[in-house]
Amino acid sequence: MKNNFEAQSCPLPITDQDTVQLAHGSGGMMMNDLISRLFLWAFDNPVLNRRDDQALLKINGQKLAFSTDSFVVDPLFFPGGDIGELAVNGTVNDVCMCGAKPLFLSTGFIIEECFSMQELQRVTESMRAAADRAGVMIVTGDTKVVNKGKGDKLFINTAGIGLVGHDYALGAAQLKAGDVLIVSGTLADHGMAILSQREGLAFESPIKSDTAALNGLVEAILKAAGGEVHAMRDPTRGGAAATLSEFAGDSQLGIRIEEKAIPVNEAVKGACALLGLDPMYVANEGKLIVAVAEKSAGKVLEAMQAHPLGKCAAIIGHATDHRPGRVVMQTLFGGQRIVDMLVGEQLPRIC
Amino acid sequence: MKNNFEAQSCPLPITDQDTVQLAHGSGGMMMNDLISRLFLWAFDNPVLNRRDDQALLKINGQKLAFSTDSFVVDPLFFPGGDIGELAVNGTVNDVCMCGAKPLFLSTGFIIEECFSMQELQRVTESMRAAADRAGVMIVTGDTKVVNKGKGDKLFINTAGIGLVGHDYALGAAQLKAGDVLIVSGTLADHGMAILSQREGLAFESPIKSDTAALNGLVEAILKAAGGEVHAMRDPTRGGAAATLSEFAGDSQLGIRIEEKAIPVNEAVKGACALLGLDPMYVANEGKLIVAVAEKSAGKVLEAMQAHPLGKCAAIIGHATDHRPGRVVMQTLFGGQRIVDMLVGEQLPRIC
Repeated sequence: MKNNFEAQSCPLPITDQDTVQLAHGSGGMMMNDLISRLFLWAFDNPVLNRRDDQALLKINGQKLAFSTDSFVVDPLFFPGGDIGELAVNGTVNDVCMCGAKPLFLSTGFIIEECFSMQELQRVTESMRAAADRAGVMIVTGDTKVVNKGKGDKLFINTAGIGLVGHDYALGAAQLKAGDVLIVSGTLADHGMAILSQREGLAFESPIKSDTAALNGLVEAILKAAGGEVHAMRDPTRGGAAATLSEFAGDSQLGIRIEEKAIPVNEAVKGACALLGLDPMYVANEGKLIVAVAEKSAGKVLEAMQAHPLGKCAAIIGHATDHRPGRVVMQTLFGGQRIVDMLVGEQLPRIC
Repeated sequence: MKNNFEAQSCPLPITDQDTVQLAHGSGGMMMNDLISRLFLWAFDNPVLNRRDDQALLKINGQKLAFSTDSFVVDPLFFPGGDIGELAVNGTVNDVCMCGAKPLFLSTGFIIEECFSMQELQRVTESMRAAADRAGVMIVTGDTKVVNKGKGDKLFINTAGIGLVGHDYALGAAQLKAGDVLIVSGTLADHGMAILSQREGLAFESPIKSDTAALNGLVEAILKAAGGEVHAMRDPTRGGAAATLSEFAGDSQLGIRIEEKAIPVNEAVKGACALLGLDPMYVANEGKLIVAVAEKSAGKVLEAMQAHPLGKCAAIIGHATDHRPGRVVMQTLFGGQRIVDMLVGEQLPRIC
């Protein structure tokens, strides 16, 4: 909700010198700032202002979830997936994080002139396969072609509609002190797969994107604990750090996490160390973080580990009244550090 | 529906030499071909295969319309509108052409690095104003930034959801022989406004885009004639020629139109003559063509002319059993000519 201070101060601070930077698309602080100062200011309405990954709509008494994402990932094909699969899974995940059952997708293609027709075909087939796996239908679309040099091969937008069949209040603002935080598997796989491919890095065991549709896992979680689940979010751009910061900020609770509890693949850990990247800030495309009441945490963890996409699920921390709005990590070396949102841009065009 | 022949022959004809051309985004024959051979082939499902401007969905018994469009218009600001207004109106129009009431929009921004923050602000304010005029809410969004030189200032995708509150069967395939075709106003305004701006052409009276949300006009039409209305479509890319060809093709009826009945602004007529363009092929962004049973044509024309966006509405022709699948124009000089879809690309990046 916009307060008076925001209403007065936005969007005046924008000068004719200000331009959009790569970091405005990073999932970090600058993107947050752009969204608050520009988009929320202009579009201002109670549905959008919730700032969750999806809009919750009520149409003739029917509760629906609605979300959109554009995909500009470079390269288009990478170990473990491609832009088409990402475009389907990404929107399916945004729709289902509120517990909705994703049903229908739209897709908009922006194609650069001279793009290979065979690659376009490969991408559409991959989208169809991903849609089948997720149990959704691609029902409407649009195609635009821009002159060579005015785009970059292929950009894809998807929007998705899901049916909300429950009455649980789910969202970052619903976190309660004492809630346990569970991550569904290893962090940073997607970002490091893209980076390795882009930079031509070869590691002993190849790093693969984790792109996957999480609606089945979400169903299993809600079946295990229903109303005891308070928030779910998929840590994409900005990584787990962004998601946890949003949880802390929106709930005005503190979040404590244990570095040693955070699952990271050995190869990814090595690649991150080599390149000086923190896995907490690297994008995932098939993981979620769930906040659940302490008494149901065991049941939820068990249900997640029994699901193919949650085998490596782990409890990484909890919410607390202490240091509201802050994410604090207990490090491997016994110290503590604040985990904040990304300030600049770590890996542009990761999704 | 896909037949066996198509299932065997698609998409085999694509070779590794084939690339996407500007004409694949023209709204004409090549785009039609790309959609049939690639997208419908890959995504194949009964909702998409209707090939209307919007998907008709049934969710828990509730009928909804769902549509998407990406906007890559160049320049971003033009006489009569800008990309933001276009992005809202375009999707509102696609949603409402089936008689749905548009309710909610999503928006995805793909921004080129270094794009002016003030221009972005101007676009978002324009989107908000257009949404308010159309009575819709922008409820969810996404922002991506691509490196300088890998995009072109700003691309916007919108997707929209509308509520279908009637049981009329509306669609190009519903046309009946004898149906009267009415256009809601002058043709070719949008395309010629963009072209004049892009080429720096100055005409005595400036040509303005007709961008507008047509949901109010659609309501007035349905109120006047309800089930007697058989099809509505907004002639955007590919112009009125594409829409009429789709009507003829999908209904397997002939369409006869009178050149002298087609409303075109004097300035637009002059500009078209100067540049050798046919107004039938130039894009509109605030016009619709409706097919209505003959007995209700008078009522519908009257209702349209009473609406601010239908003042220049005119009967331009009718559907007939003669020459099924063909659009035939009675020319000003007493001859006849076939009006076919655009083959190449006339005006790239018009929307």
